[in-house]
Amino acid sequence: MSKPYAIRTALEEILDGLVEGDPFPPERELAQRFGVARETLRQAVHELLVEGRIERRGRGTVVAKPKLVQPLSLKSYTEGALRMGRKPGRLLVTWEDVEATPELTAALDVPDGDPVMHLERVLLADGQRIGLESTYLPRHRFGDFTETFDPTTSLYAAIRATGVRFGSAVERVETVLAAPREAALLESTTAMPMLRLHRRSLDVDDRPIEVVRSLYRGDRVAFEALLNDRD
Amino acid sequence: MSKPYAIRTALEEILDGLVEGDPFPPERELAQRFGVARETLRQAVHELLVEGRIERRGRGTVVAKPKLVQPLSLKSYTEGALRMGRKPGRLLVTWEDVEATPELTAALDVPDGDPVMHLERVLLADGQRIGLESTYLPRHRFGDFTETFDPTTSLYAAIRATGVRFGSAVERVETVLAAPREAALLESTTAMPMLRLHRRSLDVDDRPIEVVRSLYRGDRVAFEALLNDRD
Repeated sequence: MSKPYAIRTALEEILDGLVEGDPFPPERELAQRFGVARETLRQAVHELLVEGRIERRGRGTVVAKPKLVQPLSLKSYTEGALRMGRKPGRLLVTWEDVEATPELTAALDVPDGDPVMHLERVLLADGQRIGLESTYLPRHRFGDFTETFDPTTSLYAAIRATGVRFGSAVERVETVLAAPREAALLESTTAMPMLRLHRRSLDVDDRPIEVVRSLYRGDRVAFEALLNDRD
Repeated sequence: MSKPYAIRTALEEILDGLVEGDPFPPERELAQRFGVARETLRQAVHELLVEGRIERRGRGTVVAKPKLVQPLSLKSYTEGALRMGRKPGRLLVTWEDVEATPELTAALDVPDGDPVMHLERVLLADGQRIGLESTYLPRHRFGDFTETFDPTTSLYAAIRATGVRFGSAVERVETVLAAPREAALLESTTAMPMLRLHRRSLDVDDRPIEVVRSLYRGDRVAFEALLNDRD
């Protein structure tokens, strides 16, 4: 059995005996206990940090909350978080009209020269920063949101309240590193793997509703899809 | 405009003028051209490497092939790769009976004490290593695969050929760092973000077919789901 694998197994056993919030033993102590170099141990601990099994708190390390598992579905972030028993929240970062790029003009089917609305929010679960969501909306469909929409609430609920019905979406999932600005907004670092989601949603008449580009902390979020033979 | 963002935009413009396989200018030259510190430039180039826009080749860097976009569906890897015009391939790593853990016994509904079959393969697209797939199969359903199945071919085709029909699956997507062994098998490093997929598939009578744990190179693969309001 390789040394990294044996250490990983030993660390899993330690985690099995601990619960959320418990302090995780310091690297120095673990390296001594297993008789391995500090560097070998550091790699294994780094893996656990990236996977969100443990997290830094102040100068120490504690057992982390389980990942938030979000369904890949047309349900809103709010519904996904509540399903997991987490309290959803949002912090407004940007809420402005922007010039539509040729890509956005095509994706949102906006009239020539029409701006699009850009809503950028930090997504919270139980007060923890878990994602950064950028939504682009066609102004000719949702222009009054500037006055009526409270950006700390569910956007999907507001869209549905206008009578729009979600029909379908294509969603792409990738892994990326955060840019420095994104890392800062997520209270993470540019070295931590993130999940990048790109979604384009259409209503039941196949008219574009939104383009969304989100970045989720890989140590705090996983996505889950239910696949059927109709796919 | 922040400096990292401006550099990233400038690099995108350089990429727009290049095609797959073209050499990408060296960091030293780019740092000089933009008048920024080598370290600032290195971070932007590292982002492009992680996203699979460029890749190391020998001592230089070239423009990479676009990512393989795999559908999140009950289709096989083979079908997904062919859809993108890539030639699928597989390298056998492990093909053995293993003792079922309590987790596997439950997930695969195997009789007490029955071993499970473990098939581990490197997935190739056009000869490039893109993923490492570990499949666990119940021996009481597919025991004759040891004699009949050619591990360099499609497992899903072989399963379907026995008359089994895939009904549904739950698939989870996360981002992780590879362990040293996995990184070596994928010709990558332990610092590159990967996509970890976990799937449990059932047949049309809801009987377990397989448990799959795969690791995909984040710089070479993305996943895409088609969402509908029935979800």
